[in-house]
Amino acid sequence: MSVSQPDPLLPVLRDDELSERAAAVFADIRATRNTDFVNNIWRVLANDPPLLEQTWAEVKGVLGADGELDVLTKQLIYIAVSVAQGCNYCIRSHTAAARNLGLTDAQFAELHAVIGVAAKTNRLVQGLQVPIDDAFL
Amino acid sequence: MSVSQPDPLLPVLRDDELSERAAAVFADIRATRNTDFVNNIWRVLANDPPLLEQTWAEVKGVLGADGELDVLTKQLIYIAVSVAQGCNYCIRSHTAAARNLGLTDAQFAELHAVIGVAAKTNRLVQGLQVPIDDAFL
Amino acid sequence: MSVSQPDPLLPVLRDDELSERAAAVFADIRATRNTDFVNNIWRVLANDPPLLEQTWAEVKGVLGADGELDVLTKQLIYIAVSVAQGCNYCIRSHTAAARNLGLTDAQFAELHAVIGVAAKTNRLVQGLQVPIDDAFL
Amino acid sequence: MSVSQPDPLLPVLRDDELSERAAAVFADIRATRNTDFVNNIWRVLANDPPLLEQTWAEVKGVLGADGELDVLTKQLIYIAVSVAQGCNYCIRSHTAAARNLGLTDAQFAELHAVIGVAAKTNRLVQGLQVPIDDAFL
Amino acid sequence: MSVSQPDPLLPVLRDDELSERAAAVFADIRATRNTDFVNNIWRVLANDPPLLEQTWAEVKGVLGADGELDVLTKQLIYIAVSVAQGCNYCIRSHTAAARNLGLTDAQFAELHAVIGVAAKTNRLVQGLQVPIDDAFL
Amino acid sequence: MSVSQPDPLLPVLRDDELSERAAAVFADIRATRNTDFVNNIWRVLANDPPLLEQTWAEVKGVLGADGELDVLTKQLIYIAVSVAQGCNYCIRSHTAAARNLGLTDAQFAELHAVIGVAAKTNRLVQGLQVPIDDAFL
Repeated sequence: MSVSQPDPLLPVLRDDELSERAAAVFADIRATRNTDFVNNIWRVLANDPPLLEQTWAEVKGVLGADGELDVLTKQLIYIAVSVAQGCNYCIRSHTAAARNLGLTDAQFAELHAVIGVAAKTNRLVQGLQVPIDDAFL
Repeated sequence: MSVSQPDPLLPVLRDDELSERAAAVFADIRATRNTDFVNNIWRVLANDPPLLEQTWAEVKGVLGADGELDVLTKQLIYIAVSVAQGCNYCIRSHTAAARNLGLTDAQFAELHAVIGVAAKTNRLVQGLQVPIDDAFL
Repeated sequence: MSVSQPDPLLPVLRDDELSERAAAVFADIRATRNTDFVNNIWRVLANDPPLLEQTWAEVKGVLGADGELDVLTKQLIYIAVSVAQGCNYCIRSHTAAARNLGLTDAQFAELHAVIGVAAKTNRLVQGLQVPIDDAFL
Repeated sequence: MSVSQPDPLLPVLRDDELSERAAAVFADIRATRNTDFVNNIWRVLANDPPLLEQTWAEVKGVLGADGELDVLTKQLIYIAVSVAQGCNYCIRSHTAAARNLGLTDAQFAELHAVIGVAAKTNRLVQGLQVPIDDAFL
Repeated sequence: MSVSQPDPLLPVLRDDELSERAAAVFADIRATRNTDFVNNIWRVLANDPPLLEQTWAEVKGVLGADGELDVLTKQLIYIAVSVAQGCNYCIRSHTAAARNLGLTDAQFAELHAVIGVAAKTNRLVQGLQVPIDDAFL
Repeated sequence: MSVSQPDPLLPVLRDDELSERAAAVFADIRATRNTDFVNNIWRVLANDPPLLEQTWAEVKGVLGADGELDVLTKQLIYIAVSVAQGCNYCIRSHTAAARNLGLTDAQFAELHAVIGVAAKTNRLVQGLQVPIDDAFL
């Protein structure tokens, strides 16, 4: 579905508008992901090549391969943070990433059941000012 | 470590102060978790037995057993939400639960590396008002 | 219960340390609330008399008397925001205010049941990216 | 006003796509609310019938009738949480519910005046690290 | 770019719909900013003249002129809060204001690099429950 | 003031417990800041040397020197995010950093006046669902 959206606050750069440093990052994104598609966050960050380089290095390093946690688990954690912080772009782009890694509808629904119960109990604990048990200190 | 903390806003009920409905929930918590220890959130919610019953049923149903996602993954998702929402009690109690399920120091550190990169890129996307790619709509 | 707490980032001014402008605000706080007690938020804001004046005028104007909503309802709304934003001082000081207005334990528990269900369903809606019904637009 | 919106991340189920369990919940929603209209949150949750059942039971139980607090007060608390957490769907759907319960424009404006002053003073307290008064502990 | 948006929850008042009190505030907005343009937040708040007056007085007083901090720095702080709280309208309107004050693309990108590193390290500190150093207490 | 605090969730490493990689980062922190003091966030991150290296490089790169914005302005932006996200450690440590850069009490108070008005107007805009003016799109 195509939806009319407001312009970003820095331009979404096309490939032919990239600086040399930004173009090098784009080449690595494409090689790493094995696709020609480069999504908008990178095209906006390309306006500031050092920020683009640093952010891509971090995303690739943390999310790019199985580590102590497998890549799908890491995408679910990323989505949970994005829901709690209200970032629609992040929810959509990382749900797409998780889908590509095999996330099923049933797993996706359970992810949100967990997020929902966490959101609820977080607020009960904060609102009632529950003291931390000695066992957890 | 024992740390002096403020009183909660409803009393932390001892076992001998429970209503019959609350006592029944506590019995189920103990049987389900196979331990006599009942942590403070339940002792505070026990002041409102229907809220206690409903909340325990939800926590047990969503987090209590492997489902579409395994129990450790679900605890990591819970922790991620709690960090993003700033609930110290929730971070500590569910980190303890995850530790009991075998979470290692290295996995725990990687969990936070993921939360950190999510928190950062969330704010870049929101602040620069990056439009959602058609591919994600 | 007295609990050791870190120092604030501006001093908590005693009555004998107030500027004339701050002292005038304190006199109005005491007259309005019919008590000699002035809590710490005002003693910290007193370091910046215009901010103190403006904030007290706003709190008094919005929360100080029944308006379109009664004062207890307004305190409950205030508490709900403070829980959702994680401000412990605000939760405690406005729960005390609501108690003074007659809030019962049972009402207080229900307040949190509402906050909890709101927190949960908020996250479900955001995470699943539910479109707004035409009926609500 | 009809506005083009992105697709949700699980399908918005039509009545003829519901499982038997989901259809039973929809029947109860319709009977409880005395209207044929079922809004999108339920149509998305219907993809996971247990989550639908549990969430509807909770919403109906907490918000569905006067309890310790009247239903309009509870809707105002719900809206306050939704504003503080940034859930547009929730703000709109529960404002519609509150309007049906008789919320006036003047009450609605005052609700937001309270939310605004709470949001401001929350941040002042947190930023200045105001210690909690002994009287509130 | 013109984008279709949902209606606000109170009407966006035209100049010929203003009460006398609201019209006086609009006249001051126009005189202060030296432009005929009055943006939507004021047109919505105009439904509640006291809230309009109080909010405009505060915005004008805090953001309207160099004080201890210069006006551009204050707009950057405002934007940082708005990103962290997820207010799109606020991000856009105050980015426009900062642009009018001379904010460059390079400064704007660095603003977001700071916001991003703050968002990330905030979550690391909270998630790992780092104790505050004695030096900072 | 020394205050008893709960233990962190990973150990606060002493200098004699550091890995070689972590020790190298500490040496750079000390050289960069021209002090022997290394605060707790780095001692906790030292449990994961790659996360420590990456985070320090980012903090040093973004906050360590004047760039498009001067270092004090960047610390104020950092504090604003930390207040909005509720990170006490971050508020305290970066307020200390800003104090070292010459932040006065009057500037500090004005910083919070800006944060307060931003927090308030953010919530008014979100709660009333104010549409973005065409001029800002």
